[in-house]
Amino acid sequence: MKEPTVSLIKDMLSSHPAGNSNVDMEALARCIESCFDCVQTCTACADACLSEDMLGDMVSCIRTDLDCAEVCAATGKVLARAGKDYASTVDLVRACAAACRRCAEECQQHASAHDHCRICAEACHRCAAACDALLLTISA
Amino acid sequence: MKEPTVSLIKDMLSSHPAGNSNVDMEALARCIESCFDCVQTCTACADACLSEDMLGDMVSCIRTDLDCAEVCAATGKVLARAGKDYASTVDLVRACAAACRRCAEECQQHASAHDHCRICAEACHRCAAACDALLLTISA
Amino acid sequence: MKEPTVSLIKDMLSSHPAGNSNVDMEALARCIESCFDCVQTCTACADACLSEDMLGDMVSCIRTDLDCAEVCAATGKVLARAGKDYASTVDLVRACAAACRRCAEECQQHASAHDHCRICAEACHRCAAACDALLLTISA
Amino acid sequence: MKEPTVSLIKDMLSSHPAGNSNVDMEALARCIESCFDCVQTCTACADACLSEDMLGDMVSCIRTDLDCAEVCAATGKVLARAGKDYASTVDLVRACAAACRRCAEECQQHASAHDHCRICAEACHRCAAACDALLLTISA
Repeated sequence: MKEPTVSLIKDMLSSHPAGNSNVDMEALARCIESCFDCVQTCTACADACLSEDMLGDMVSCIRTDLDCAEVCAATGKVLARAGKDYASTVDLVRACAAACRRCAEECQQHASAHDHCRICAEACHRCAAACDALLLTISA
Repeated sequence: MKEPTVSLIKDMLSSHPAGNSNVDMEALARCIESCFDCVQTCTACADACLSEDMLGDMVSCIRTDLDCAEVCAATGKVLARAGKDYASTVDLVRACAAACRRCAEECQQHASAHDHCRICAEACHRCAAACDALLLTISA
Repeated sequence: MKEPTVSLIKDMLSSHPAGNSNVDMEALARCIESCFDCVQTCTACADACLSEDMLGDMVSCIRTDLDCAEVCAATGKVLARAGKDYASTVDLVRACAAACRRCAEECQQHASAHDHCRICAEACHRCAAACDALLLTISA
Repeated sequence: MKEPTVSLIKDMLSSHPAGNSNVDMEALARCIESCFDCVQTCTACADACLSEDMLGDMVSCIRTDLDCAEVCAATGKVLARAGKDYASTVDLVRACAAACRRCAEECQQHASAHDHCRICAEACHRCAAACDALLLTISA
């Protein structure tokens, strides 16, 4: 049975006239998608945290959420411009993985109490892993 | 048979402690996802256009792509903060729908020549429709 | 006596090879600068609010700050791409002015208690005025 | 004699209730401002390049401009949230400095032909230097 989900970004990368040889397209597509998943969950999680009763306990989570959303959005957009030499993206992708790990750890601490933190922690964890996987395929 | 695609943002919206009553959650989730699809296709399309042989013909497409990506990213993030009164988002969602329609029209002109423009036109068209659908559910 | 402040964006707009005839350059430069001032004050204000003792009172301010920063960043970047017909920016600039006015009103309520809200309210107010002024110069 | 230029972000940082001890405020304010200067010049430069006659020669410049604008915007916003431990920003600020240096080098190659590239190269160079200066003040 075929997978019904289409990957818009994979189709976009395939149709780019400058075929990219110094990065794995599968890993690249997965990383871009994970970045934008993270933008959405982190942005939504920060706002959900603002509505929690124990707001004082969520301040650190709101901050890591907002920073992670920012870095993931920039990384996702930079990675989606496929005409580049991806060696130039290594430091940004590393910074993104680090931001995601920080946010995953922070959200994980509230995961049993708040579903939005649990879902966000998982998305951040997946994005960090997708960044790591992409980095392994970028040849210098 | 169950739908295999999970909607991260729908799960995030459902777990928001402040249940939102002045907007339809299904339409909201679809609009947010469409916005981030558009960010990805427009960003990738602009870069693919930069690698086309007839670059001079693609300048207007690159510009509408970049502007559309910008407005969709902002709209997607504003909509993902669900603790708000959505009446305050009406003018932004309208501006987003207009940017998507402009970009869909521009990309459509190159759709037969370039697959990236065809895919991007479709994503922009879907996002404009998702914005329109959302606007209908926002009560003043 | 010479004006000591240099406007980077004004110099950039002047050096654009496609001279723009359907917008006033002075008003455009001022609006772009005001947008990026607002991005900075709103982002910083939201974070400062998160450190306030009476955090519960600042939730609405944090939300309007974050949304205003988002819309101003998108508007500033769209306006900085000067090769366009500015008639296409009217709805976005209106949405930006509205976001700035909402944020100015919200921040103004905390202006006597918190300097960051007072400064941010002023920046939002200036940006709303710069948007209004720009709109008057855009010919259809 | 009074300094005529006001620094909005310096005033915002001073009014933050959580005084930051592990970063130099002067270097932080300068870096944030330089980031947003760079967002403006890089965004405007990419668009000006699109209007140049020898468009084919500007493709690489447009790409580094757009990526630099993205990374600077994210870095500027992350740095403007002053309630954090700045040790967490080191990798992002390094990625930003690298993006600015790449863009400064690229723009410099067109500086004698295009004023927008010359001004943008200078802004990128200043931002890279401001990032380097900030990094020296962040204590682990």
